[in-house]
Amino acid sequence: MLKSKNNAAFLISCPDRKGIIAATSTFFFERGFNIIHCQQYTDPREGRFFMRVLVDLDSAPTARVQLLEEFSTVASGFGMQWSAHFCSDVTRVAVLCTREPHCLFDLLCRAHSKELSSAEIALVISNRPDLEATANQFRVPFFCCSIDGSQRRNQERKVVRLLKQHHIQLAVLARYMQILSSDMLDEAGIPIINIHHAFLPAFQGAAPYRRAWERGVKMIGATAHYVTPVLDEGPIIEQDVERVTHEDSIDALSRTGSDIERRVLARAVQAHLEHRVIIHANRTIVFSPGL
Amino acid sequence: MLKSKNNAAFLISCPDRKGIIAATSTFFFERGFNIIHCQQYTDPREGRFFMRVLVDLDSAPTARVQLLEEFSTVASGFGMQWSAHFCSDVTRVAVLCTREPHCLFDLLCRAHSKELSSAEIALVISNRPDLEATANQFRVPFFCCSIDGSQRRNQERKVVRLLKQHHIQLAVLARYMQILSSDMLDEAGIPIINIHHAFLPAFQGAAPYRRAWERGVKMIGATAHYVTPVLDEGPIIEQDVERVTHEDSIDALSRTGSDIERRVLARAVQAHLEHRVIIHANRTIVFSPGL
Amino acid sequence: MLKSKNNAAFLISCPDRKGIIAATSTFFFERGFNIIHCQQYTDPREGRFFMRVLVDLDSAPTARVQLLEEFSTVASGFGMQWSAHFCSDVTRVAVLCTREPHCLFDLLCRAHSKELSSAEIALVISNRPDLEATANQFRVPFFCCSIDGSQRRNQERKVVRLLKQHHIQLAVLARYMQILSSDMLDEAGIPIINIHHAFLPAFQGAAPYRRAWERGVKMIGATAHYVTPVLDEGPIIEQDVERVTHEDSIDALSRTGSDIERRVLARAVQAHLEHRVIIHANRTIVFSPGL
Amino acid sequence: MLKSKNNAAFLISCPDRKGIIAATSTFFFERGFNIIHCQQYTDPREGRFFMRVLVDLDSAPTARVQLLEEFSTVASGFGMQWSAHFCSDVTRVAVLCTREPHCLFDLLCRAHSKELSSAEIALVISNRPDLEATANQFRVPFFCCSIDGSQRRNQERKVVRLLKQHHIQLAVLARYMQILSSDMLDEAGIPIINIHHAFLPAFQGAAPYRRAWERGVKMIGATAHYVTPVLDEGPIIEQDVERVTHEDSIDALSRTGSDIERRVLARAVQAHLEHRVIIHANRTIVFSPGL
Repeated sequence: MLKSKNNAAFLISCPDRKGIIAATSTFFFERGFNIIHCQQYTDPREGRFFMRVLVDLDSAPTARVQLLEEFSTVASGFGMQWSAHFCSDVTRVAVLCTREPHCLFDLLCRAHSKELSSAEIALVISNRPDLEATANQFRVPFFCCSIDGSQRRNQERKVVRLLKQHHIQLAVLARYMQILSSDMLDEAGIPIINIHHAFLPAFQGAAPYRRAWERGVKMIGATAHYVTPVLDEGPIIEQDVERVTHEDSIDALSRTGSDIERRVLARAVQAHLEHRVIIHANRTIVFSPGL
Repeated sequence: MLKSKNNAAFLISCPDRKGIIAATSTFFFERGFNIIHCQQYTDPREGRFFMRVLVDLDSAPTARVQLLEEFSTVASGFGMQWSAHFCSDVTRVAVLCTREPHCLFDLLCRAHSKELSSAEIALVISNRPDLEATANQFRVPFFCCSIDGSQRRNQERKVVRLLKQHHIQLAVLARYMQILSSDMLDEAGIPIINIHHAFLPAFQGAAPYRRAWERGVKMIGATAHYVTPVLDEGPIIEQDVERVTHEDSIDALSRTGSDIERRVLARAVQAHLEHRVIIHANRTIVFSPGL
Repeated sequence: MLKSKNNAAFLISCPDRKGIIAATSTFFFERGFNIIHCQQYTDPREGRFFMRVLVDLDSAPTARVQLLEEFSTVASGFGMQWSAHFCSDVTRVAVLCTREPHCLFDLLCRAHSKELSSAEIALVISNRPDLEATANQFRVPFFCCSIDGSQRRNQERKVVRLLKQHHIQLAVLARYMQILSSDMLDEAGIPIINIHHAFLPAFQGAAPYRRAWERGVKMIGATAHYVTPVLDEGPIIEQDVERVTHEDSIDALSRTGSDIERRVLARAVQAHLEHRVIIHANRTIVFSPGL
Repeated sequence: MLKSKNNAAFLISCPDRKGIIAATSTFFFERGFNIIHCQQYTDPREGRFFMRVLVDLDSAPTARVQLLEEFSTVASGFGMQWSAHFCSDVTRVAVLCTREPHCLFDLLCRAHSKELSSAEIALVISNRPDLEATANQFRVPFFCCSIDGSQRRNQERKVVRLLKQHHIQLAVLARYMQILSSDMLDEAGIPIINIHHAFLPAFQGAAPYRRAWERGVKMIGATAHYVTPVLDEGPIIEQDVERVTHEDSIDALSRTGSDIERRVLARAVQAHLEHRVIIHANRTIVFSPGL
């Protein structure tokens, strides 16, 4: 619905120097492309330049392959790391979960209502059987890869196999209560977004709502981040909070929190699917959605 | 899940004078009841006193009927308007909708996950057939009362008949794009909560997102309110907003707004179901949830 | 403090067409200028393009006059409306107030702490004597132009004369409880920013906190906007809100509101002083501050 | 301005059991006192009961001393820890600061505008001379207790001596960049409120804005808490946050943060001055302001 349009998003990063915008915009102008949205950012500490250019592919006749080839010439002149994403391509997504239904429900509803840009939730994987009915309700295949009785590494290999078999391009941990091993991350080889039920870096690790209650915080939050080998330390994509009071029990924090979790996770997944995120030095540059 | 506990919520309103808290709390104390939560408010303009008392029914042996009878004696001494609600009773809810699925989906998911206190979504009514599959997905009966080919009053009568037949105690307008006539409100005779997709009283009436864009506001919001005969002027239960920028198109406002709508509506419905709302002079007193 | 740097901000608006970014960025690149920040926006309804380019003047030898002359050639090729602002130039600001001290205090403190980019609060004007001591405390000249005993137009002429004499470039209405006539706006001929103590377009006009209380809203807000001849209908620069409850009296709303007012006004003034605002069709494009 | 009214606030805490509200409200009723506001909270983990009762002293003839004496009888029956605060009494406040002016300015402006309930900022103490002019501007005595050339304990003793000499009842650390020793806290013997420029428990300790930038958080916050011997671990009174983006430099975070700091600190100080805070087990119960 959102970006079924025939656009391409170029994500670019290179050492800052004069002339990058001029060269890039001239490149597209000379080929007749209309630039729909263009945003830049320069990291002040490292002097590194980042840019997202959204180009209307219908505005010029150049073929995909040729466009990429020709752009790579400009790119190499500036030492760019870059990628191009075609917005009409559907991204295949897997959702991993355990027992809490709220984030899974939310993503399934959004996908069903075509709120998620050109994405298809292709399968749901869980280490427990509880949410099978939820997946079925939306006619999404459900796979239970339980850990009991198998080694953790065996289970991880099963999960990776499923991701590969279904050509998954993005995995979303929607309250998946397992820590992914470094090996698994390597094997999966795709971006993985996790929702942590706290305002990171506060309350990393287990039982954040209980610890938030004990610390007596006056707001609670949630954090969506890319998964890296270090638990809860990956690049943050999105965060949000809500006010709570001394009256809120741990259960109440958890209920309020579940609403924050679902919207933070949805926004992060949406930003990723719209090709608006560049990761650099464990931080994210999240470009604005534009129109 | 939340309040399946055997509690009773007393909602009280009367002219302010000395001794109301003393008399009420002594009443419950003398009968051996434990007061779980007690909150008061005095309207400074009218000198009117409001109170919600949440009582643990398991803490004393008095029967429901007797408790109510005895309380009515205290109440009449202070000229109280009051009602008592038994939290273990299930509230039967109807959701009315048209074409937008997000609020309906959200309520169905919450009911399914037992997030809504002792409530059952007993039926979905729409003036269009579009969302039948959504209701079916959650095994909730769906009724299409279309307006084409029938008079508006006929359609309203059909809706009211359904509400009566299913013993509905609360109707929720989840983006139901029809204005309810004063007659229908009378006939229905139950509280009706509507979600308006703007921060009332800004942008009352039609097309609020378009008008918000044209006015160039920097935040958009949503408002849940009880329905009264005057369009968008009923007592407000809950509101929330989110920041937007000049970059957001009308479509983008509508997408951002749909997230605000669902959480504002859910919170308002929850407050009503927990018997935390008193209406007075077109304003609401919304007591805090307590634990 | 913030932008005493030797930068120039170009604010540009023109009909959208291919090649604008390319031409503009190439213009600066060819002259050796470093582009520090560059942001664009295209109005989807009118196909109008807007851009802010922040250029480091120290990065190239071209003189101010020459730069402007040469840029006007590019600009006329695209039919641009444009202006260039030199960030090292100090903007002379007048604050107009009546009796409420909080916004005046806030602006004076910020100016004193060098939080406002290259701005000097050159004078305070009031229609009442109450806040003279406040202005004196910060050694800013205070002028009382009272309305009693003089015609309103006479008073307005006096105010305009003061603005002219002190070479004021921006007037800020910090709870100035007078409506400016269309004639006065013409005569003043400078941008004027007002803070309205409500979330516009809700509660336009007088006594917004009282009306907010009566309507029973659950959040209150404030709006900073450019003043136009139509009361409270000028282009909005910034808004913010805070949650309130039924417990908050009109006085409490006003106290909570005064905190919102000061920060909303400060942000709007700051955006204007950093040359980040373009007005078009009664809406503002507010570019992000960058670094 | 706010609470110059002749009210008394009773802050009560005791083991939960039936009859506490009844006994307390009956106590005041029998003596003819009007209860203006009454709020309770029961800690679910410890079964401990907390209450704040705001009583209109003008509504009954009992003298202060007698009231306290008589209440102590009720209180001992329930094993209450309690204190009574007379709202017409002025609280003497000292502000401690170092070099950052924004929080000091904010508190001085609020005190000057009578926004702080019955409080007087009686002196400003700093370990550096920078903010002397700021204090002078508001005619508040300024004392520089520098640390260079003296032992830290000597300096602390000097500060404590000033607090004692000026009969200070509340000290506010308004970006006072010194850690108070456990000995000093004992010697001072009064509540001390600190503003930490991060959303605790995230970024405890030094340089929170730099660390927030490095971690790439998408919101920054501030926390006001009572000071205890363990750095940044005292009971939290108030927190707030604002959204930031990858574009915000460390300086920009610090500027945005300074606005959060001042409002969070002001709200916490206000809550304390209105006798709305009870500390228990390193958490605060913050009762609502009522009217």
